[in-house]
Amino acid sequence: MSRRSLHTPAPEAEVLRARLDRARAAAAAAGTDALLIAPGSDLRYFLGQAGGSFERLTTLVVPAEGTPALVVPKLEAPGYADVPTDALGVDVLTWVDGNNAFELVADRLGAVGRVAVSDFAPALHVLSLRAALGDAEQTLAGPVVRELRMRKDAAEIDALRKAGAAIDRVHARMGEWLKAGRTEAEVGADITAAIEEEGHTHADFVIVGSAPNGASPHHDVSDRVIEHGDVVVIDIGGPIPEGYNSDSTRTYAVGEPRDSDVAETYAVLQRAQRAAVEAVRPGATAESIDAAAREVIAGAGFGEYFIHRTGHGIGLDVHEEPYIVGGNALTLETGMAFSVEPGIYQAGRWGARIEDIVVVTEDGVEPLNTRPHDLVVLPQ
Amino acid sequence: MSRRSLHTPAPEAEVLRARLDRARAAAAAAGTDALLIAPGSDLRYFLGQAGGSFERLTTLVVPAEGTPALVVPKLEAPGYADVPTDALGVDVLTWVDGNNAFELVADRLGAVGRVAVSDFAPALHVLSLRAALGDAEQTLAGPVVRELRMRKDAAEIDALRKAGAAIDRVHARMGEWLKAGRTEAEVGADITAAIEEEGHTHADFVIVGSAPNGASPHHDVSDRVIEHGDVVVIDIGGPIPEGYNSDSTRTYAVGEPRDSDVAETYAVLQRAQRAAVEAVRPGATAESIDAAAREVIAGAGFGEYFIHRTGHGIGLDVHEEPYIVGGNALTLETGMAFSVEPGIYQAGRWGARIEDIVVVTEDGVEPLNTRPHDLVVLPQ
Repeated sequence: MSRRSLHTPAPEAEVLRARLDRARAAAAAAGTDALLIAPGSDLRYFLGQAGGSFERLTTLVVPAEGTPALVVPKLEAPGYADVPTDALGVDVLTWVDGNNAFELVADRLGAVGRVAVSDFAPALHVLSLRAALGDAEQTLAGPVVRELRMRKDAAEIDALRKAGAAIDRVHARMGEWLKAGRTEAEVGADITAAIEEEGHTHADFVIVGSAPNGASPHHDVSDRVIEHGDVVVIDIGGPIPEGYNSDSTRTYAVGEPRDSDVAETYAVLQRAQRAAVEAVRPGATAESIDAAAREVIAGAGFGEYFIHRTGHGIGLDVHEEPYIVGGNALTLETGMAFSVEPGIYQAGRWGARIEDIVVVTEDGVEPLNTRPHDLVVLPQ
Repeated sequence: MSRRSLHTPAPEAEVLRARLDRARAAAAAAGTDALLIAPGSDLRYFLGQAGGSFERLTTLVVPAEGTPALVVPKLEAPGYADVPTDALGVDVLTWVDGNNAFELVADRLGAVGRVAVSDFAPALHVLSLRAALGDAEQTLAGPVVRELRMRKDAAEIDALRKAGAAIDRVHARMGEWLKAGRTEAEVGADITAAIEEEGHTHADFVIVGSAPNGASPHHDVSDRVIEHGDVVVIDIGGPIPEGYNSDSTRTYAVGEPRDSDVAETYAVLQRAQRAAVEAVRPGATAESIDAAAREVIAGAGFGEYFIHRTGHGIGLDVHEEPYIVGGNALTLETGMAFSVEPGIYQAGRWGARIEDIVVVTEDGVEPLNTRPHDLVVLPQ
């Protein structure tokens, strides 16, 4: 009946308490009377535990003024025994099947004008909360919560560094598995096992995009048999026990690449990825990093083959703020972490992508993935 | 970048098309102009594939009148290559980063009065859709979709039967792992592996609640070392490749139970579970099944120790309609499948639960789990 979860390291109570205080201040500054934080990464950020539930409502009520409260089904409350609610100054309100949990939240909040819900709260709860809260305006908590979550502290960056090193160790072993005659799915199963062996709690995604499949950026794995000469995009990652994620892509060739245009095209991609990383520093905008990669690729005539944004923030979620995309004028600050992952996709033939996670430092940038960027030609 | 998914059997196109037709009719009957079906179980029910995405919008637009459309990010569209969209009469509308996907949905819908969103669509999309759809009333798709999903067809029941047999095989092997001197987490890891070995794609939940932990219905696993004489609640399940879930609980004793009240209390639980199953038939109400179990337990003086509803529907989701709970006057029909899982929880001491999945048949009930209901005393 319960979602499987792992016992995992959580930040100290004082760190969590400071986050709650900052969230309350950020809510107040945004004119929001309360945040309703849903199970998942948001809840883990504030309570050190992601929780998790099916259809019953669990939510952390964080009022701009007043005492936070964890509203939780009585039968799931024991799962939060490790959360230092007393030290955090968080009340615990339980409810049982048959109670109206949404009215419980409304009663706790009293008269409110604007209430924000976690971005990944399910519609089932969002609409019921809206109804229970009557005239209150309902907004997303994301714009408030991101102000905290996208600025990583030293411990969070350490965790991302550890995740980066773990996935680098998997990429370093790719020659063990990626061989002509095997299917993408077979290679993917070996990678999945290695992701766990190298220190992740599980593999969150494993893309093995061989030859034409590499031209589909969100390809998964298939039963395609990998052939000698294939170019293969390997994009892999998952969370470590601390909850922070890895995400790194390298492009491999199974023996010397079959297509004659690979070397030249790949060199363009390599320049684009480097240009984007070199543009990262405090004060640069998110869109300027995207532009740095895009200019190199477009300048070489491949603009139409780069069909996605340059990157996404990463932390407790694989994709989070800041997004490195045209139109995002957000100014980068020290402690922000995101992927830089341009790609060039030759539909029906092959694709290539290079992806590192980087963190903005006081004087520039620290890549958290350090495997070489060259096309990795695996001897067959 | 992509969520890991497995290549999995999907229903025939004609089955999916019939579901879409029924959904359109059900939407019209409910006065709903369109359903917006999110990735996950709802999407899998209609397209044979769950999809999956992070923050980018994917939604299946199902108008009461007119042609359905799958709105999907261009870079994720190749992931739907196996969906027979032509045979289903579903248009595919792709969008790229920088486009407003919500406006795309609004344009497709035109003037609408009421639009329903999948129960598990994220707030991020729910609120943006609400804004894009202006004055349209936004409701939950659950009440419409459940009219289809809770009535299983023969193939769905076959899949649930297969899942039930698979988890029964895991319970049958429990003596291999559940031994004094091991931690719950160690036992849980072995069970997790066995769940996969016996034909599930993965373990969705593994509860090993020994002695006092068994009195917490949604306990997970812990580092508690199991002792001789412990009563242990084992509640396990997960999906098989067809997407349908298992969920079964048995209660074990590690050697003869230490507490002298176990036998008598457990006998009450056994009677309660049997009474509830025997009450299942077409025409009975969901709440009457709950009452059948509750009366036995309350009659024996343990009413306050049965702290949750008697069951939940099961299918592509582990928890779905119909809920077997007081206040649910829903009339049971042939093809409905749900758990019957009363429990008695002695806080701080021990707990017990017996859970079978059952399906309503034309003349009564078919349990899909067939392991004996006695307390399983494992010799040590």
